[in-house]
Order: sequence, then structure tokens, then C-alpha cells
Amino acid sequence: MTSLALIHAAAERLRGHARRTPLLNAPLLDRIAGRRIFVKAECLQWTGSFKFRGGWSAVSALPEDSRPRGVIAFSSGNHAQGVALAARRHGIPAVILMPADAPQVKIANTRAYGAECVLYDRITQDRDAMGAAMALDRGLALIRPYDDPQVIAGQGTTGLEIAEQAAEAGISGAPVVTCCGGGGLSAGIALALEPSGMQVRPAEPEGFDDMARSLASGQRQRNALASGSICDAIVTPTPGLLTFPILQRLAGPGLVVTDDEALQAMVLAFTHLRIVLEPGGAVALAACLFRPDLPDTVICTASGGNVDPALLASCLGRYPAQ
Amino acid sequence: MTSLALIHAAAERLRGHARRTPLLNAPLLDRIAGRRIFVKAECLQWTGSFKFRGGWSAVSALPEDSRPRGVIAFSSGNHAQGVALAARRHGIPAVILMPADAPQVKIANTRAYGAECVLYDRITQDRDAMGAAMALDRGLALIRPYDDPQVIAGQGTTGLEIAEQAAEAGISGAPVVTCCGGGGLSAGIALALEPSGMQVRPAEPEGFDDMARSLASGQRQRNALASGSICDAIVTPTPGLLTFPILQRLAGPGLVVTDDEALQAMVLAFTHLRIVLEPGGAVALAACLFRPDLPDTVICTASGGNVDPALLASCLGRYPAQ
Repeated sequence: MTSLALIHAAAERLRGHARRTPLLNAPLLDRIAGRRIFVKAECLQWTGSFKFRGGWSAVSALPEDSRPRGVIAFSSGNHAQGVALAARRHGIPAVILMPADAPQVKIANTRAYGAECVLYDRITQDRDAMGAAMALDRGLALIRPYDDPQVIAGQGTTGLEIAEQAAEAGISGAPVVTCCGGGGLSAGIALALEPSGMQVRPAEPEGFDDMARSLASGQRQRNALASGSICDAIVTPTPGLLTFPILQRLAGPGLVVTDDEALQAMVLAFTHLRIVLEPGGAVALAACLFRPDLPDTVICTASGGNVDPALLASCLGRYPAQ
Repeated sequence: MTSLALIHAAAERLRGHARRTPLLNAPLLDRIAGRRIFVKAECLQWTGSFKFRGGWSAVSALPEDSRPRGVIAFSSGNHAQGVALAARRHGIPAVILMPADAPQVKIANTRAYGAECVLYDRITQDRDAMGAAMALDRGLALIRPYDDPQVIAGQGTTGLEIAEQAAEAGISGAPVVTCCGGGGLSAGIALALEPSGMQVRPAEPEGFDDMARSLASGQRQRNALASGSICDAIVTPTPGLLTFPILQRLAGPGLVVTDDEALQAMVLAFTHLRIVLEPGGAVALAACLFRPDLPDTVICTASGGNVDPALLASCLGRYPAQ
């Protein structure tokens, strides 16, 4: 099966289960940007991020004989919630390994979606070893956050919708700027958009621009630090083994934004699009707002909305409405 | 033309111009409510509220010979912005009379949508006389906020979409709780839903429940006060002359929520649906969350998102995430 065929097959499995999120825009946002920006609002997806697509795609693609035993995932955030709800709706158990210091609300939400959350100590416990032992012991299938063909295919369904919605809006040839961590969403969208000729431009936070540097150098690069950006949802050490070659073949140069620009984009999305974004989900919009080297019409993903309310509240005070 | 035919005709004129907003829901919100709540997210409509539908419907229904001279509206809020953008996209002038003490951002936004904002002093100037003189002098057509058949028809297109989206989601017979001011949205949706058998339940803020009391008594009642609720967008003195008989015939009893419940609903919509609401746009959701006397599955409108960021920020601190 080609990659594009995998995406179309995932779209069939997701039909009636994932939400077809709207492609939003706003005249007053365009005025600030100096260009037309169309925003694929995946914060309105089930569980508040595009991760539900990949979770559903992977769970629904499991062979019938291994499916009932359940799935396991490592995540402190959006992937956890996406996999948890996808598994619950398939009626199979999900085990999510989460760091014990993850935000309580994320642990509570993942449990509320029906998953068994196993907490580990980041310093004293080896997550990978714990997970491998549990997977073996209980016969669980591991669902990786991005380096899995079915996960990439699920995220790619976002790209199929973007192609349709862009055509409906009369947009052709616009770059599609994506929020990029490990590259699952970016690679999936790039594959889905290949027939349309629309090019993906991955966007990352400053200091965690491993994908941009990897694309520029032609080799997978690592970030100097493991954490330190407010855009926690898309801080990953290095591009995925599967996602990087796809983006190397299909994506344009990476774009980099500061944390401050991501937070401003979050506030502008709040004010002008009336959607709630987390910083990592606002990185692509920030690039569209603040990078001069983009054309007059651009599309971007608003990939997640699981923000700490106190953070957004403080930003609303810091950046006055415009 | 019947009222339903007017709505279908408005839907034709709105096609490709108004946004088909999503019908959202979230498992964790349902858990808090103890029932399934489906939310028609009109905060994602152009200009941030359903008022764009009525504005577009009215402007596009003007006879060709009066259209070029322009339109006039009185509003400090959502109707102003809806009419301003609808007129601009028809290429005709819009004059909006706004109180000089309206929030600067609303005046600025209405101007940014291309309208001529004429400010008046609430105390010393007679808005109606000013507007009538300008309309006569410049040949402008007045677009009323709710007591106009084409405005009601435009708002009613929301109801056509709700009927379609409810059917897609497998929902039948659920009440549709609406945020109710003058009753344009409520009456339009009630007419649109008449064939489906789904009943509108208007929701209002405590102390400004003129529609609920009017429906109960069979006579149009007035509110004791002209202002004093945080839900400013839906504070109107009395039900409309056109809207009341429609709701008297088709609506169920009104629902009343406190300001505090509206603000809590705003925060829960933020957290679980990732949409931005203003208090008046959260009243119907508040009724669905907090009134016991509703069935297991309900639909509501989230009718506007033009909130003061400082207000939402303060509420995010006041009501912790759940």
C-alpha cells in the first residue's frame, strides 16, 4: 500500500468518528498579518488536538487478534488523551505511562477518557523498560506518537481535509505551515497534499528547531536541550526515523518562532478566531503572522488547545487586544 | 412566502458566505453536566457571532434599487459587526450608530469591517431621532437587530444546520436551548426546526428573563432594569413584536441562569470545547449544564465570542479547571 493509500484508508476508518474541523479565517487577523491566513482548527478535534486522528487510526488498524488485549502509549499530553479516547471507543483497554509530575488535569483527563494511567518517576525509573515489560506481560500493542505508519496516516487525514477545504475556499498553491514536533502531523499532511502541489513548511520553537536544521543539512539533527520552551507539546529531541525522509522529500524549509511570538499568536487566535490554543499549537500561526518570507495566502494548522488556563489568562493581560 | 421558505431562501443567499459552524461536544463536559450536550458554535461564525447571518440575509434581500445607498444599524456589539461586514462584502456603505462609551475594541472592529461609526452620547442625544434623520437624509435602509423578517430568516439558517447536524449525529427529539435577547435567533431556529419536531427553549440571564415571563403569562413582559447583567449581548427590554408570537406558538418554557452560571459555562467551554464565548453567548450552555429539568440529550447555541479578554482571564482564575 502506498503512503497516500494508507491515508485514504485511515480516512475511511475515521469517518463518523473524528471531527472534520473547520478551516477558519478572519479579516481582522489578516489585517494584522498583512496576508490571508487560513487556520485548520484541530484544537476543536476530539480530546483537543489532532492526536485523536493518529490514535484512532492506529487502534482501528490493529489486527483483530491483538486488538482486545489493549494498547499502551507513553505521553504526558495530547497523544495520551487521543489514544485513551480512541481505545475506549473501540472498547479496548489503554495503558498510558505518564510522568508523575505531569499536570494533574492532564492525568485526570486521560483517566476520565477511560485509560489506566501508570505514573513513573522521571529521575529514578526507566520509562521504556517499564513500558516494554508491561507490553510483553499483558500483550499490549505500543502506539508510538509519530514514528508509526498508521499514526502518520491518521494525522495525514488532516491534509486531505485541508486540500478539500482550500479548494472550496478557492485557494490554490498556498504553503501549509504545520506545528512540528516529531513530524507525524507534518509528514502526514505532506503526503496527503503531494497530489495538490501544496507544500508543507514545518514550524518549530526557537532552540528546538531540530527539523528545520535537519532539513537544511540533510541529516537528522538533535536539539541541544531536552526542555525549556513554553511549546512543550512539540518539543522532541530529533526528527522521527520515518517522518524525516518524508519531509526531506516533500517539505519546504522549516520556520522558527520565538516563545513570545507563539504566545502572541495564541492571544490573536483567541481574539479573532475565538479558538483556544496551547503554545505548541500556535507555532504555525505565529510563523504565518510574523515571518515575512511567506506568500500572500497561507494555510496553517492550529494543532492543539490543551492549554493551562492560568497561562492563557496571563497572556491575555500581557498582550492587549488589537 | 412562508416563514420556512424565507429561511430556505436566506440559506441560499448565505451559501458560500456564512460559515457552517460545527456542532461540538466533549465527553468530559457531558460528565460534568450529567447529560449529553451538543453545542452549535456560532462564536466561530464571521465577526464572532450568529449576527452575521441576519446581517447578510437582510443586506442581500434589499431591493436592487435601494441597495447601493447603504444601510444603517444601531448597536454597540455583535449586530454592529455582523451588519458592517455583510455590507462591506456587498460593496455598499454601512453606518452604525454606537454609544460613545462602547468598548473601544468594538468600535475599532466595526470600523475595521469598513463601517462608518457614528458615536452618540447616551444621555444627551436621541439615537432613534439621529438614526431616522440620517436614514432619510442619505437614503439608508435600517436593519433592525431582531424584529425584521429577513433578519429572523438569516438567524434561522442556524436551525437548518442544527437539524442536519443532529441527524448526522443520530440525535432526535432533543430540545434546542438558545441564548435569547430580543428573540431573533430563538424565533428563527424555532421556525427552522418546526418540521423536525425539535423544540426551542429560550435561555436568559436572571433579572432579564422577559421572554420566559412573557411565554409563561402569554403577554409581552418588560424587564425591571435596562442593564445590570454581565450578559450584555442579550439584555433587551422586552420580546420583539415579531419574535414573540413565533416563540409563543413554538417554544417550550424559558430557562433562566445566573450570571455566575454563565461565567462558569464560559470557562467550561474554554476548557473542554476550546472555544471562546462571551457571557451572553454562554447562557444556553449554562442552562444545559446547571438546570436539572432537561432530558439526557440537549443541543444549545453558543451564540457569540466577542468577550472582553480581561473578563475571561479573571474567570479562568476564579473557576479552577475541572
